[in-house]
Amino acid sequence: MSIKIALLGFGTVASGVPFLLKENDSKITEAAHDTIEIAKVLVKDDEEKNRLLAAGNDYNFVTNVDEILSDDSIDIVVELMGRIEPARTFITKALEAGKNVVSANKDLIATHGKELIALAKDKGVAFYYEAAVAGGIPILRTLANSLTSDKVTRILGVLNGTSNFMMTKMVDEGWTYDDALKTAQELGYAESDPTNDVEGIDAAYKAVILSQFGFGMTIDFDDVAHKGITTITPDDVAVAQKLGYVIKLVGDVREVESGISAEVSPTFLPKAHPLASVNDVMNAVFVESIGIGESMYYGPGAGQKPTATSVTADIIRICRRIKDGNVGKSFNEFARETKMANPSDVTSHYYFAINTPDKKGQLLRLAEIFNSENISFEQVLQQKANGTRARVVIITHSMSKTQLAAVTEKLEAEEDFKVLNTLKVLGE
Amino acid sequence: MSIKIALLGFGTVASGVPFLLKENDSKITEAAHDTIEIAKVLVKDDEEKNRLLAAGNDYNFVTNVDEILSDDSIDIVVELMGRIEPARTFITKALEAGKNVVSANKDLIATHGKELIALAKDKGVAFYYEAAVAGGIPILRTLANSLTSDKVTRILGVLNGTSNFMMTKMVDEGWTYDDALKTAQELGYAESDPTNDVEGIDAAYKAVILSQFGFGMTIDFDDVAHKGITTITPDDVAVAQKLGYVIKLVGDVREVESGISAEVSPTFLPKAHPLASVNDVMNAVFVESIGIGESMYYGPGAGQKPTATSVTADIIRICRRIKDGNVGKSFNEFARETKMANPSDVTSHYYFAINTPDKKGQLLRLAEIFNSENISFEQVLQQKANGTRARVVIITHSMSKTQLAAVTEKLEAEEDFKVLNTLKVLGE
Repeated sequence: MSIKIALLGFGTVASGVPFLLKENDSKITEAAHDTIEIAKVLVKDDEEKNRLLAAGNDYNFVTNVDEILSDDSIDIVVELMGRIEPARTFITKALEAGKNVVSANKDLIATHGKELIALAKDKGVAFYYEAAVAGGIPILRTLANSLTSDKVTRILGVLNGTSNFMMTKMVDEGWTYDDALKTAQELGYAESDPTNDVEGIDAAYKAVILSQFGFGMTIDFDDVAHKGITTITPDDVAVAQKLGYVIKLVGDVREVESGISAEVSPTFLPKAHPLASVNDVMNAVFVESIGIGESMYYGPGAGQKPTATSVTADIIRICRRIKDGNVGKSFNEFARETKMANPSDVTSHYYFAINTPDKKGQLLRLAEIFNSENISFEQVLQQKANGTRARVVIITHSMSKTQLAAVTEKLEAEEDFKVLNTLKVLGE
Repeated sequence: MSIKIALLGFGTVASGVPFLLKENDSKITEAAHDTIEIAKVLVKDDEEKNRLLAAGNDYNFVTNVDEILSDDSIDIVVELMGRIEPARTFITKALEAGKNVVSANKDLIATHGKELIALAKDKGVAFYYEAAVAGGIPILRTLANSLTSDKVTRILGVLNGTSNFMMTKMVDEGWTYDDALKTAQELGYAESDPTNDVEGIDAAYKAVILSQFGFGMTIDFDDVAHKGITTITPDDVAVAQKLGYVIKLVGDVREVESGISAEVSPTFLPKAHPLASVNDVMNAVFVESIGIGESMYYGPGAGQKPTATSVTADIIRICRRIKDGNVGKSFNEFARETKMANPSDVTSHYYFAINTPDKKGQLLRLAEIFNSENISFEQVLQQKANGTRARVVIITHSMSKTQLAAVTEKLEAEEDFKVLNTLKVLGE
């Protein structure tokens, strides 16, 4: 008697699941204590069904989800459609029908995960989504199982392959943002509307999920401040290099005295930091904790086979739990009261690039403004004075988000100064 | 009703366990579904017991292991004594007494793991040892759980912190082997007899355990060829740098057509390879697989808190399985028939440093010898010709172990040539 699963959607990732089931047949069967059978596959319409059949795909394709939901022989529904609807409705119905669900849908889980997790718990079924964060990297299960004895204090992640590919080209090859985007689109890494990737939205979804697993706190997408890579110029990249840093888009979730803080922003990483070597479309999650200290989990953040590997590991885990009679256990059991940090508690070094008039006394005036907010300088560079305008680069000592807001407001109120960019700098 | 555990040994690592149990009390209790109580601690003698009590350690110290073995209230025995005996006897007795066992003892598990794993299975109890490989890196559980859907083809690991610290100094600072060893000993990273670390023995123990989890094959310690870092000279390091490589001691387990091959050797790693940035005492395990592709797990390979974190995660997992009634499941269930690879199937690029007379025709003679074994050159450098002797460096194209043995024998038979070093080169 095999375990029967149904796939919702048969796109790139979904077709990786049968590849693994076939290729690793005996290993998977042994691990799942049973054979896994793809009983039904939901596709959009008859046209897609006929195209897939004609291409030699030998599955029981259906076009109405009810054929899956009402089929009592199906134990696990695997949602690989992406986007919010109809995935949300289908998953909700599947959970309500008492089916276990696997999903790789980060958008959905970051925005409606709370209700789906609660529903799964209520129904005593599994809802797993390892592939939703950093595709092929088994980070969620590792946080839930192996770091269960540890206390995580900070998670830093290169969580978006598209923007990391672009930043790698901008850093290593000196490309502009526009050149990098064009190539990313040509290679199929970026969509025609790249907003989710380049504005840090996709990484922010992942930060929401990492907050649950790493800190036991359920935060909302709106709690994650996000800033993208669109404003990064070759000047920013060059000065970072000169000062011993590389710029990457980094998700940063940390716990401070007052609660947790989560944000996604382009960040100056010291060159020796393990995340600084994570290049091209690769992802990595760097975890700081009181037990292990520092650990990093590196791998592909997307792609057919990596994502399907995580999805299939979830399926196997559910099969085992069905046999063990404990399938109702939550994917992540770590839960605490959610407290957001006070901005005055969240500190970092910062990089400011400021355009100033090229005349006497400007640096003094800048120093006065920063000093009035109790912010001191770690490094200052004056660049590109051309007789009219100059570019001043400042790396500050540690300062809070409150100080950042205050000094930014003061700088913007000065007619002489134009703040070109403000970026977080990870301390050594 | 709490879960009662007993610690065998109360050295550095062992005292990290109560630290975590106290510091992460509520998280651990929630995860274990119960409180965990250290009921007894085995120490060597009354002298150690009195010293620990005087230092304020408030535990029930015992000096006879039978007080633990015969205590039916103790569910889990945690062995943190190290070395083979008496750890082997104590663990055997604990398993025979129906107790679950956690160990961090790589030497023991690599050499006698087979019998202990079989005994645990026979008795229906758990025998877990996450901390035995790469201390704080949760690599074993990740291979067993998350990569269960994947097929691993190769595992490359920087598995020994001491030798990696030394190689980092030799590469980054140009230190000699002797300087690096002296500093490692001063810093407490290397023991007065550093053999296990610098000769690759410790890393070979870990390769044995990784073979079980990654490939489902139980190999013996003697199946792992090991070569240490003692023969690496500043000349080797300099030429590696020049050609775009760094040298590290790397454990390498891979599956080829005929079976698996496991070895530990100093290896030329391309600078862009993720393992090449793993520095100082840090460890990392790089996994190649057909699903994920490439993934890497990075962290501290030793140390009190990292090791205790892995040990405590094992304890929590056992507590959960006790509650679930499935504690008898093996730590690693993946098992296949063990087949060792045929040396003619195991290929790599190689580096040869050869001392030759500084006279005409030597390079031609070398080329003839390599050619007679069907080995071709990728790069050749002639260095340091001083009128008497010269140093020739060769990087070969891919060649097998059989070819390596044959060409080495031919080179050694030539009076003119002295092979200074032969090292594996990881292809790009």
